Formats: sequence, structure tokens, C-alpha cells
Amino acid sequence: MEDVIELARRRGFLWPSYEIYGGASGFYDYGPLGAALKNRVEDLWRRFFVIGEGYMEISSPAIGVEEVFRASGHVSHFVDPIVTCEKCGEGFRADHLLKEKGVDTDGMTYEELDEELSKRKVRCPACGGGLSRINTFNLMFKTGIGAAGRTGYLRPETAQNIFILFNRLYEFYRKKLPFGVAQLGRAYRNEISPRQGLLRLREFSQAEAEVFVDPGSKDRHPRFPEVSHVKLRLLPGDGEPRELTAAEMVEKGIVAHQYLAYHMVRTYQFLREAGIPVERIRFRQHRKTEMAHYACDCWDAEVLTERYGWVEVVGIADRTDYDLRSHIRESGVDLKAFLRFDTPKREKRVILEPDMKRLGPVYKDKAKEVGELIRASDPGKVKGDGSIDIVVEGERLNIEKGMFSKKTVEERVEGEKIIPHVIEPSFGIDRIIYCILESARTTEERNGEERTVLRLKPAIAPYDVAVFSLVSKEGLDEKAFEVFEMLREKGFLALYDTSGTIGRRYARADEIGVPYAVTVDFQTLEDDTVTIRDRDTMKQERVKIADLAERL
Amino acid sequence: MEDVIELARRRGFLWPSYEIYGGASGFYDYGPLGAALKNRVEDLWRRFFVIGEGYMEISSPAIGVEEVFRASGHVSHFVDPIVTCEKCGEGFRADHLLKEKGVDTDGMTYEELDEELSKRKVRCPACGGGLSRINTFNLMFKTGIGAAGRTGYLRPETAQNIFILFNRLYEFYRKKLPFGVAQLGRAYRNEISPRQGLLRLREFSQAEAEVFVDPGSKDRHPRFPEVSHVKLRLLPGDGEPRELTAAEMVEKGIVAHQYLAYHMVRTYQFLREAGIPVERIRFRQHRKTEMAHYACDCWDAEVLTERYGWVEVVGIADRTDYDLRSHIRESGVDLKAFLRFDTPKREKRVILEPDMKRLGPVYKDKAKEVGELIRASDPGKVKGDGSIDIVVEGERLNIEKGMFSKKTVEERVEGEKIIPHVIEPSFGIDRIIYCILESARTTEERNGEERTVLRLKPAIAPYDVAVFSLVSKEGLDEKAFEVFEMLREKGFLALYDTSGTIGRRYARADEIGVPYAVTVDFQTLEDDTVTIRDRDTMKQERVKIADLAERL
Repeated sequence: MEDVIELARRRGFLWPSYEIYGGASGFYDYGPLGAALKNRVEDLWRRFFVIGEGYMEISSPAIGVEEVFRASGHVSHFVDPIVTCEKCGEGFRADHLLKEKGVDTDGMTYEELDEELSKRKVRCPACGGGLSRINTFNLMFKTGIGAAGRTGYLRPETAQNIFILFNRLYEFYRKKLPFGVAQLGRAYRNEISPRQGLLRLREFSQAEAEVFVDPGSKDRHPRFPEVSHVKLRLLPGDGEPRELTAAEMVEKGIVAHQYLAYHMVRTYQFLREAGIPVERIRFRQHRKTEMAHYACDCWDAEVLTERYGWVEVVGIADRTDYDLRSHIRESGVDLKAFLRFDTPKREKRVILEPDMKRLGPVYKDKAKEVGELIRASDPGKVKGDGSIDIVVEGERLNIEKGMFSKKTVEERVEGEKIIPHVIEPSFGIDRIIYCILESARTTEERNGEERTVLRLKPAIAPYDVAVFSLVSKEGLDEKAFEVFEMLREKGFLALYDTSGTIGRRYARADEIGVPYAVTVDFQTLEDDTVTIRDRDTMKQERVKIADLAERL
Repeated sequence: MEDVIELARRRGFLWPSYEIYGGASGFYDYGPLGAALKNRVEDLWRRFFVIGEGYMEISSPAIGVEEVFRASGHVSHFVDPIVTCEKCGEGFRADHLLKEKGVDTDGMTYEELDEELSKRKVRCPACGGGLSRINTFNLMFKTGIGAAGRTGYLRPETAQNIFILFNRLYEFYRKKLPFGVAQLGRAYRNEISPRQGLLRLREFSQAEAEVFVDPGSKDRHPRFPEVSHVKLRLLPGDGEPRELTAAEMVEKGIVAHQYLAYHMVRTYQFLREAGIPVERIRFRQHRKTEMAHYACDCWDAEVLTERYGWVEVVGIADRTDYDLRSHIRESGVDLKAFLRFDTPKREKRVILEPDMKRLGPVYKDKAKEVGELIRASDPGKVKGDGSIDIVVEGERLNIEKGMFSKKTVEERVEGEKIIPHVIEPSFGIDRIIYCILESARTTEERNGEERTVLRLKPAIAPYDVAVFSLVSKEGLDEKAFEVFEMLREKGFLALYDTSGTIGRRYARADEIGVPYAVTVDFQTLEDDTVTIRDRDTMKQERVKIADLAERL
């Protein structure tokens, strides 16, 4: 069976980038069919998360300023351990070199990796030269902005754009939690030696949603009842596979809360709609050692592929308040939500009460202002001698002991400011597309020959319909072209193909996953009907041209 | 009247990027409403060019390897003249500094700019310091790929990806000209001091189509008759404004050929559909001095804005064979199309004819192969002594004079290889969005107050529909929420708003351009009908909930 990547290349789904310049690993072009498929998968994602969940989409620059990634931790933590060949200069990931020798490097420190490399006398896989000790290599692409070259990075994830816009977004959502925000866009990771085609790209497409929630209500998702009965295959951190409903996984404490479980189910439903067979989907919990630096619990949706085994395609993480807290620290800007209590609380508080009778004679017409400033002062600021400093019109005044007294009052408190937590489903679009192609590709005996059929779901197929004429004579092809133009005008992505026999054309359309083929034949000239052939069942149905668009 | 950019910021269309880190000029975020608007404008573009014209879309990396931009000319030509302040270090464009002093710098050399700057004693606008002489500054963002740091650039235009894929695309289109390929994506220009908001971004969105044509048939576009009657406002290179039909502009030689004129009309139609008033659209021809290094004729679609005057939003260029020729030279790969002659030609050609009778005895069982190699040799390679060298199985053989003879033959030639020319409509999506917002924003007296209404066309409005309940009691709001959910499930981008009076809610929806508002009122509870209010006419219509989706 032809490799699916070879098929994708031959038919115009995917091409390795920069071929005429010798290629550049980690980059892929989506050809005409691939780009159409990708657009449809992204539209399906929007139907699920933007329209369905109401997570409004934003679109931000891929170039970010350095401060963003200092705050997010990517400048210091988003690094790989590399060793460089002292002879040919090529760089390699230290852990990958050891894994190839059968070493389990999980959780090893850089010192331990170094030790292991020298103990095993590992040499350069390219030229056999000696290797340097481990250096860290930051996986962000760096660039300079403007003539002065302010440091910028290409974002390693689309999420950060959303975090730093928190105040704008919170206001957009009328200051109410929870709310979700989505982004579909490119992200970048300067991988050291990417070799797994679409699975490890240096430039890739993400679809991420960041859902901001009150940490106290993570266990009550308003739509959880709609998904609570859905069963998922789990591989929890303890390594024991289980199949549980969403309700069970939360009750048993295997998944931390309803918000995570809800998004796991929605992810499962999305993958199913995209055409991934459900028996090839599982959810695997991250072990502590592989968790990203920002996450407290994370489940990966994985798809079982023929070529690569289990492949992570979606990560569903509870990022807690890590990111917002980091950006508050780095920027000095408050990124918080105000949570109103169900019933206002009464809280006792110590305040300073000015003695207006004594202030009046001393401060005269300023006495009122001084009194207010005393009342607004922090009782902790009272000095050892019982006096306090206040600033009146830019001038510092020392107010003596006796001009005011400490007093305990009871106050009505309406709510409190909190840093929301973030639940994030993060989809790797390119990996999903690989899995879709691999799952859809089948080989079948049709008309006595072994043929490839791409059973893409109609909702994501690159073309909606192919239009053929049975033969190219007696005006059949003109008629077919008219039908094609009519469908195109109605917004169908239609394929018009005239070359070769009708059998070859069906075969070619099957191979790229066109779900329906419309054929104009001699009967068409008599009664204005055409046949619609279903790619999967190969059944034909005859319909009036006037009803065709509706029928499709 | 509130500035449209201020409105866009307040309501969540557009936000300057990285605000919490002090901002970064030349970068903008599309907020929830802006991103939705942008998606819709891009979808409209796809309906015109991808579906309508059949220019299949591809999607390539934004990071390109250096060779691409050496070939395209961007490494050497895509530069700005800058001067740097010797005191504060800030960089400025030399020509901009002079333009601010009223100097027409068009066509001036760097020497002349330098001279003019020192003659006028121009100093740093930021701190008054002295300025350096002119340096060139490349406008591409540079980065390093992989551990070895192979030079990469962020693409300054999406077009190059298409050119370098020519052979793949030509094959996809079954080796037939003309064909078109589109790409929507980010492009990058490291502007020196971008100050015009959305008009001069460092990271921006392009929608480009590259149409590959036989240079000999640029004057016959198959669909030209469909557009030949459409009138456009032109400002040709000679500076004399004219209003001509597409047919006239080509006949009079004002626009070079039908392919350009056709795409100018389609551009005009697109802008009109996007909501730009036609009286604010004109096409301006580039003067020779402003033409990009790759173009031979170029027309800009310009839109008259209130804030910036005439703004270029689309460029329609004949890029000739410049790009393909450049990539052939740089890569050594043939990027050509085979053009079949209408009738095959017979051409005379000199070949070498082996004399098998004399070769046989000398070369025995290799004689046949030697003979074929002689026949395949270039007659120009025959040496002064009449012998020729050939290589048989890796071994060089000298074949003596007399073993072969020159002979003139007549051959049937089916066609020739040519480098196609490229016609390119290139759309600046961000600028178009600015123009759409500015054109749509009106101020009207409604209910006795001055109010802002954003008259976005329904096809591109961020929300399709708003759903309100007249008051939030007696279950009206639950019913309204049901209607909202029903519309959302049918794929409508719907807005549900419960806060404030119904009047305030209509006003808020008008301000962000929601074309229709559906209101649930007391009658709804009786007969399951709701009202639909039209944003622009403010007329209300009552429909059954069951017919609502259809009606919208």
C-alpha cells in the first residue's frame, strides 16, 4: 500500500517546503487539496468551539516582544539540551541520542545526560566526531524589531496573546466569568532536527481556546450534564487503562474537575466528526515529569496511527493562574476579575478616625482634607511615636498622636478580586490532518483493480463534488461544464475533470476523497437529470439538475 | 464624531498589541469582533477568487530560507534608506524626514537624499541630535533556523511560496496554462517607524493570487466578455483621470492587456461587495519610479478615506517572468511550461549519424550503444580533428572521424518550453478592513439621540444576529435564550444580550454592525413569533420562530 504521505504528495495535499532549494526540514506546504482540507478542519473547529461554545476568536501577531516570553517562562524554560559535533558542527538533542541507545532519559538532569553520553561514548551520528558537553538551546525563533533591533520572538503557542489581552477581553465579556477566547494561527518551534514530517514542524498551526474560570467553580461546568454520559478511553498517570464516562472520571478523582472532563469530551466529539475512528482515540494523562512548566493537570488526546503509533494531537490542560500571575508580575498591570459574593460579607477592619475637634484649630481650612487623608491611611503606617505622615497637596505633614485614634469598624464587602484560572484545549491542526488522511485512506478492489479510496467525511473533503461528462461528445461536456459553473456559483468547491475514461475519473476523484461525483450522460440531454455517485457506496442516484444543489 | 479607530478599540474590533508591555508599533490584535469581520472578509475573497475563479488556495510557511529571497531580489532590493541619530540611536527613514520638510523625494538617489539632508541641516526629530549618513536597512525580519542557525526570513509577501512551487502546481493543474493559485496568510515588513495604525503594519495579512499565463495570450482572457462593460475610475501614469469601461481601457492601451483589466474589475466588484462605496474607489497606475523591482505594469486599487486620503488597498501587477526566471537562475531547476503548437512545426536540425558498418568491427557488442550515444551527441562537440568523445559505462571513448557523419534532418516539433508570465492581484486585508470600518460608520439621530451605526454588509458583519428579550421577566429571557441557542446550533454567529433597556441593546448592536436583532416579547409566549428588526431601516417584521433561521 502506498504510503499516505506519498499519496498526499502525489495528489497535491502536502509538499515538503523549499524543494527546489534542497528543502528545509520542519516545514511543509499545504498544496491545493491540503489547504482546502485544512480550511475545512479549521471551520469544523470553529463550529465546535467558536460558534458552539461561544469562545470568540481573536487574531494576534505571531511576532511577540521579549517581555511576553520572559513572563511566560519560555525564555528560560523552553529549551532543549543539545550537544554539538566538534568536527562537523551539527547539533543533536542529547536525550534523543540516548533514547536511540535504549536509555530511558525521562526525568534525567542535564548532568546525568552528560554523564550517560560520555559513559556510553556516544559520538556524532552524522560524521562520528566527538560531541561537546550539553548546552541549552532555546526553541523560539528570535528576530529583531525595527532599526534598533528590539528583541522579538515568534510565538511558541498562540495562547500568550490571549493572556496579555485579559483586561480587554474581560471588559468585552462585560466582566463576567467564565468566558472563553479562541485563536487559530501559526506557532513556531525551532526544533533541532525535526524528522517526523507533519508531526514535528518548525512552523505549525494551532487552534487554542483559553477558558477563564473562577477557580472555586471548576467543578461545576454549566453544560456538563450534556456530556456526563459520554465514555472515553483513559490512560491515567498511574498507567492503568480505563474506560469511564465523564461523570465517573470526575467522581473518581481521575480527572481533576468538570471543566477538564467537559473539554475532553468535546475534543473527542470533534475528532470523531473530523473522521478519526473512535477506537483509535484515547486520553493520556501527563506524568509529573513531562508536564509543561505552566500546567497542573494535563490530558493529551492521542490517536493511534499506523506509522507512528500513538500520536498526541490535542492537549487539554489546567494552566491554573500561572500565566496571568506571571504577566502581572512582569508588567505590573493588574489582570484580575472581580468576583461578587452571593451575599455581601461584613468584615471587621481597623481604621484611623480623625479627631476633627483637634484638627480644626491646627489645620483650619485644610482640616477637612487632612481628616479624610487620615481616614484613608493604612493603620500599619502609624509610627512608633504614635504619629503618622500624610501628603497634602504635595507637602508631607506629620500628624501628631492624639489627632486621631484607631477604631474597629464593620464594613460591607461586595466581593473580591481574584486571578482566574485557565482551562486550555490546544489542538495541533497539522497532526490532526495527518491522522485524518491516514485514517481515511483505504485500499479496495473496485472494477477488478486494487484502488485507493480516501474516505474523508463530506464536511471536510477538499472538494464537495466532481462533475464529469460520460463522454466528451454530442455536447455532453458543454452541459457538464454548465452544471459545474452552476454549482460553483452556489458556493460549492467543485472539480471539473474531462481527461481519460469515466472510470479513470471516478478513480481519481475517489483517491482525493471527493464524496460525490455528478455525471452528465445522454439521458441528461433528454430530461435534464444527472446521476450522483456516492464515493463510499458507489451507488448512483438520478436527480433533476434543478434539484442538484439542494440534494448535495 | 468619535474616531473609527477609537470605536474599534472600545468595542473589541482592534487593539494595539502588547499594551501591557508598553506597546509595539506596527502590530495590532484583532479582537473578537475584528477577527470575525476579518474571517468574513477573507471568506468573501475566497468566494470571489478561490471558488469563483478557481484559483486553488495553498498554505505555506511564513519562514523562508535565504535562497528564496536572494532569488526574488528582496535581499538586495527590499531596503529603505535610514539615518540614525548619533545621540539617541533612533533610526528614521531619510525620505520621510525630507517629505516632512516639503521635499519631493520621488526618484532621488541615496546621494541626493544625503545631500538634501545636510543642506537643510535636518536633525533628529526625537532629540535634536545629529544624524548619520544614509545606510540601507533591509525590511525583512531575519531569523536563524535550527541549531546551526541557517539564515531564514519572514516572507515579505506570500507570492514567493507559489512561484517556487511552480512545478508542483503546474503538474496539479495537469500541465495546462493558464492557471491561478491563491494564498491567504501573514506577511512581514520590518518598517522603520510605522505610525499609521492598520495601514502600515509590520505583520499583516495578504490575500494574493498568482495567475500563470502564456505571455502570448495575455490579451485574451476567457471571461473578459463578462466584465468588458464595467466602468472604472482610472488615474493613469500620465496623471489624467479617466472613467472607462474595461474594454475601452484595453483598446486605448491605457491598461496593458485583458488579464490586468479583468482582475481590476474583479477587484472593484470585491471591494463593492465588501461594502466600500464605489464612488470612493479608483485605480491608479504606478509611475516607473515607484514600481516594484519585479513588475512591468501595476495598478493600485485605492480607496478614499476621511483620515488618510487615498489609500492603496490592492495592487494588480503584471510580474512578467521575473520571478520564475530568477528562481530558475538561483536554483538551477527548470520552472517552465510546455506550450503545444496549434500545428506541429517541422524544423531542420543537424545531427550526427553513426556509420554502423564501421563501428561494428571496432566496438563489437558495444557498437549499438556507441552508435546511440553518437546520435545523441551535440554536433557542436565535434573536435578540430573531426573526432568526438563519448562516455560508455563511465569510460571516455574517442570516436575517430569517419565513424560518423553530419546530417541534416527535418523534425516534427510539437511545441516549446516557455516561462509563463504572472498576473497578480494582491490584497492588503488589514487596510481593506480599515476602509470597511470607516465607510460603514455613520452617525444618525435615533430616538432623539446622536448614535453611531456601523452599516456593515450582512455578509461580512461579525455577528449575524442579536437576540434580545423585551424585558427579563415572566420567562421571556429563558425563551430568548432558547432562540439564541437554536440559532447558534444552526451555525449563526449570534449575540445574546440581556443588560440594560431594549433601546440600549438595540443601540449597542447597531454600533457593532449587527444587521438583525430578534426580540422575544409577550406575544412570543402566545403564538411563538418574534420580531426581526433591520439595523439600517429600523423596520420590524414578525415571524414564526420555526421560520426564523430561514428568514435570516
